[in-house]
Parts: sequence; C-alpha cells; structure tokens
Amino acid sequence: MKAALMFGAGDVRVVEVPDPVIQKPTEALIRVTYACVCGSDLHPYHGLADTPEGVSMGHESIGVVEEVGADVRTLVVGDTVIVPFAWSDGTCAFCRDGVHTSCVHGGFFSGAQAEKMIVPYADGTAVVVPAGTDESLMPSLLTLSDVYLTGYHAAVRGGVTAGTTVTVVGDGAVGLSAVLAAKQLGAETIILMGRHTARTDLGRELGATHLVAERGDDGVAKVMEITGGLGSHAVLEAVGHMPAYEQAYRIVRPGGTISRVGLPQYEDAPVGFGSLFGKNATLTGGPAPVRAYLEQILPQVLDGTINPGRVFDRELPLDDIAQAYRLMDSREAIKVLIRP
Amino acid sequence: MKAALMFGAGDVRVVEVPDPVIQKPTEALIRVTYACVCGSDLHPYHGLADTPEGVSMGHESIGVVEEVGADVRTLVVGDTVIVPFAWSDGTCAFCRDGVHTSCVHGGFFSGAQAEKMIVPYADGTAVVVPAGTDESLMPSLLTLSDVYLTGYHAAVRGGVTAGTTVTVVGDGAVGLSAVLAAKQLGAETIILMGRHTARTDLGRELGATHLVAERGDDGVAKVMEITGGLGSHAVLEAVGHMPAYEQAYRIVRPGGTISRVGLPQYEDAPVGFGSLFGKNATLTGGPAPVRAYLEQILPQVLDGTINPGRVFDRELPLDDIAQAYRLMDSREAIKVLIRP
Ligand SMILES: [Zn+2]
Ligand SMILES: [Zn+2]
Ligand SMILES: [Zn+2]
Ligand SMILES: [Zn+2]
Repeated sequence: MKAALMFGAGDVRVVEVPDPVIQKPTEALIRVTYACVCGSDLHPYHGLADTPEGVSMGHESIGVVEEVGADVRTLVVGDTVIVPFAWSDGTCAFCRDGVHTSCVHGGFFSGAQAEKMIVPYADGTAVVVPAGTDESLMPSLLTLSDVYLTGYHAAVRGGVTAGTTVTVVGDGAVGLSAVLAAKQLGAETIILMGRHTARTDLGRELGATHLVAERGDDGVAKVMEITGGLGSHAVLEAVGHMPAYEQAYRIVRPGGTISRVGLPQYEDAPVGFGSLFGKNATLTGGPAPVRAYLEQILPQVLDGTINPGRVFDRELPLDDIAQAYRLMDSREAIKVLIRP
Repeated sequence: MKAALMFGAGDVRVVEVPDPVIQKPTEALIRVTYACVCGSDLHPYHGLADTPEGVSMGHESIGVVEEVGADVRTLVVGDTVIVPFAWSDGTCAFCRDGVHTSCVHGGFFSGAQAEKMIVPYADGTAVVVPAGTDESLMPSLLTLSDVYLTGYHAAVRGGVTAGTTVTVVGDGAVGLSAVLAAKQLGAETIILMGRHTARTDLGRELGATHLVAERGDDGVAKVMEITGGLGSHAVLEAVGHMPAYEQAYRIVRPGGTISRVGLPQYEDAPVGFGSLFGKNATLTGGPAPVRAYLEQILPQVLDGTINPGRVFDRELPLDDIAQAYRLMDSREAIKVLIRP
C-alpha cells in the first residue's frame, strides 16, 4: 500500500510499504478514506533528524472496516468509522473516568496518512458513522477524530458555560475549533487572538465576537480593555509556545481558568504567586480524550448543528501530501484534507 | 498599645506603639482578643533582613469592635468579629465571584499580633460572631480567619466530593485543616503525607485514613500502592516548596487535580507533557478567599460539627510571642494561640 513517511525535517514522501495485518483479536483493519495533516505534524516537519527508514505520519482518520479480529464486537466489515487520534480499551479506570488519552492500554496513532491502518482496541477506539451518511459531512466528521474535539476539550476544561468570557489564543485549526466549541457551550464574549486575516475571518463566522491581532503587552492591554479590566474567565491556549502561555496567565481573570490543548513546547513555566497562584487561576487541559466526547457530539454534526469541517480549506490526494505539508507550514492553508 | 514587631530574622519583640486610629468611614477599630502565629509568619522569621523600624506581624484574629466609621453598617461597638487574613470590599466583581483575595480594594493584614487593629472595609471583611457564643469555641472560630478555611479552599478547589481519593501533602496546621475539610466534603480515602507523629496522630483523628511518612520516590510509591496504582484524584498541597509540588504531580491521577494553598517558594515549575499536560492534570489553588466561605462554615463550628481549633496545641500571652515563634519554628508546637 501507499503511505506517507517522513525521512527528516521538511522531507515527507509517499512510498510503497507492506499492507498492515491484524495481529490481535481486538484489532480492526481499515481502509482510510479521509485523513489530514495536523498542526502537530509540523513539529517533526521542522525538527526531525534524518531517519533513513522513515516515520509513518498522520493520526486523524475516517475509514471503512475491511477486517476485524475475533473479539471485535461493535464494528463489522463495511462500517464507516471515525478513528480518534489515540486508541483506548474503553474499559480501564481512566477510560471510565473519561480520560481515554491516559488509557492503560492506550497509545497515539501514527500512520493515518496511508491507504490502510490497524486500529488497536477497535471496540474502545472507533465510532461507527451511520450507514447512508452523506459524503459532504465527512470533513466535519473527520474533525471529531481530533481537531474539533480538541477545541471542545479546551472549552469544557476551561469551564465555558452560558455567559462566560472566553479568549482563544491561536488562530490555527484548533483555535478556530475552540471558538466554535465555546460558542456551542454558550460563551457570551469570545475573543480570538490571531493575526492571519483568512483565519480570523473564519473565526468570526464560527463565533468570535472580538479579534485581537496584537501580541505581548499590546495583546494583553487589548484583552483587558475588551473585558472591562477584569480579564477573561477562560483562556483557551491552542498554540503550545511559551509566549502563548505567558499571554494566557496575564489575561486570565482572578479565579479563572487557562485550558491548554496546544502541545507544550516547554516543560517549566511560571506558576507562582506572580502568575497563577496570586489570582487563584487554574491551569488545566492536555491531550483531548476525544473518544469521551465523540458519541455525544456526532449527532450535532449529522443534523447540521455544527459544521466544524470548515477548518479544511484545501483538499489533496495522498500522492500530493508533501504539498499539503508545505501549504500548512507556510500558513497558506489552515488545514488540508487528504484523500488516500 | 502593645504590638509584636519583627526586626529581622529570628527577632520578634513586643513593643509599645501608638494606638491605631480610624482614618476612613468604612473602617472599624477592634481590640484583638484572639490571634495566633501562622506557618507563613515563619518565612520572614527565617529570611527578614534587619529592619530597625520593625515590621508589624499577624493576620489571623478575633476581636471586639471598639469603634466604627460613619459608613459601617453591619458591625456595632461591642460585637465580637472574625477578621479574615485579607480585607475586601465585598462589592467588586471579584468579591462577587467569590475571589475576595483579588478584591480591587483588598489587601493582606499584618498587625493582628497586637492589642488593637484597624479593619479596612469592615462590612466586606469582618463577620460577627453571635452574642453569647461560648468562649471555648473561640479557637475554632479563629481558624475561620485563615487556617481551616485555607484547608477548606484547597479541598473545594481540588474538587473533593463524596468518594474522592485525596492526598494531603504537609502535616502542618493547614495540611491538618485540609484533612478535616476533605473529610467534611465526603472524601473516602484521605492519605496524609507527613512524618511528625504528633501531627499525623491528630491527622488521623481529623479524618486521615492512611499516613505516608516517606518522601520522594518512596513517598510516591507508597501513595501509588494505596491507590491501586491509579494515583490520587485530588492532591492538596499545603507546603509551598518545590519537593511538595513534585510529589503532587507525580501522585495525581490522570484527569485529577493538584490544589495548592501553601505559598509557593518558587515561580517556575514543571507543567509540560511530562508533569501536568500529558495526564490532563489540573493545577489550581491560591490564597484562600476565606470570606467567601466564612458565613457558610461558621454554623458548623457553632453547633460543634467541626472543631478545627484542635490545630492549636499551645497558648501564650502576647508578651511571650517570641516563645510562640520559637515553638513553631522548632516544630514543638503545631500552632500557637496568642491572647493579647
Ligand atoms: Zn491532530
Ligand atoms: Zn482504558
Ligand atoms: Zn495565616
Ligand atoms: Zn472586592
């Protein structure tokens, strides 16, 4: 089969690899019908050391079940399934808590940018899309494998509810998803911090009530002005860099919450009296347990309540995936849909 | 009047100072009847540079109202009042949010280890104790000015509820208060980490179900063993040192919460993928807005439901306050009650 492998920074190629084979009775084999490139794929795209054997890429997918292991109960051959970016057994204490990304048998996918893929713990991981679902909904359904539900996780953990003032730091696909999620959860004021007009324009359509293009001191001043000097109840941090974190603790309202879903590119950060402690700010978030939300949000996509697939502004065949990485790296595309 | 002043590390003396005088119509003047030494008073006791003019000390008090400003509405001369460690106007957006320690007109008391004290924003700050309340309840009522409600804040922010597994890091008066608060909120398993037998014995009486004397790797291993390898839903960190913080993130369960009430003696700390983010742990806490809880918890002390004053194991007159600091510094006393 064909699969996208990364061989070093900036070097993604589609190559022929052996077809994956089911090894355990709890696994399923799917033919990937929709995949995409994630902002987090750009980290290795910038920094991966030369790797002659290649690294398989991609963790967001929709596919059709081609084969199931003997113990798989909820999927049958021919089902269309959404596959979250992390697999989970669905039964351990952490899955029962709704923290599927910490599943004791869990792990993070790589290899969705390919024609086929093995889904471990298929019952606990994949969610079936009703037969007959219109193909036009597939981009939005694909966002339930990661990006929309990552934004949703940010909003849920941020305590967003009716009347909340929310600031979203970052105008990438996750930030835009967080705007939409905050709107769905009833936020009244939604400030989007970002400076790429194509993105912030979409952000406004998705629910942002205010746009702040400034960063640093000027960005802080602007958010404080919009919030009447009080700060933002929830700050949804969808970037992962230290400047975004610093922005977040400076604009969060006393007693408010910073919810991070951008993979932190730092380990240590300010949390003492001058940043979080003094104003009783809460820091939360992490890899989104999208499986915990997927079944609840799926109907909202099917009935058209939300259209989170709007973050896809380009579509390319798997063969052209190198171009997809280039478009996202240069920020010419927000998020590129891939058709294997 | 007599007041305790600190003139440098280890140097606390009772000296004669001018009586305080009401300056603003919102203030009240109280005669302090109960005060105490706080664990946080030991920070300057260890590190204060020589200060010839002296620094007034103390922030936990009960007193009798001697005089009120023209605008004070809820207190009258002769009332016995509990004075939280922070004053607050009771009316700003942050006070209405219940984050009184971030009040726009607020501040932190110093000067309660004295015969008299001014209470700013008396209506928003002080809470009247019903006339005729038995003197034997005063030590427990005094803990509502700080220590018990600081422990309570840790437990509330930690999300402690029926069935929660809680670990309290620190066996000082705040840690012991957090044990009692966790018990009141319905925690099932309460692990107290500390190694001073007199304190952990009291901890057991207040509700601790398990004691862990070990620290570092051994302490982590012990807590993981007690929690069946899952970790603790809530970790209430009542120390403020980096080792306590490290302990906390290593034992918190995925999706769980670290709630800090020990004043952080650090600004930067691990919060990235390897500490908080990867397991979706929440970091919360801060200076306890005790005024937000005081009226709700007061009846529990008055009717004997809780007896948080048990953290006081010594009592001394104001004249002997230097001895009180010594006893707490050497850990011979958990917390010393002071009678001005
Ligand atoms: Zn992704
Ligand atoms: Zn699991
Ligand atoms: Zn105190
Ligand atoms: Zn206030």
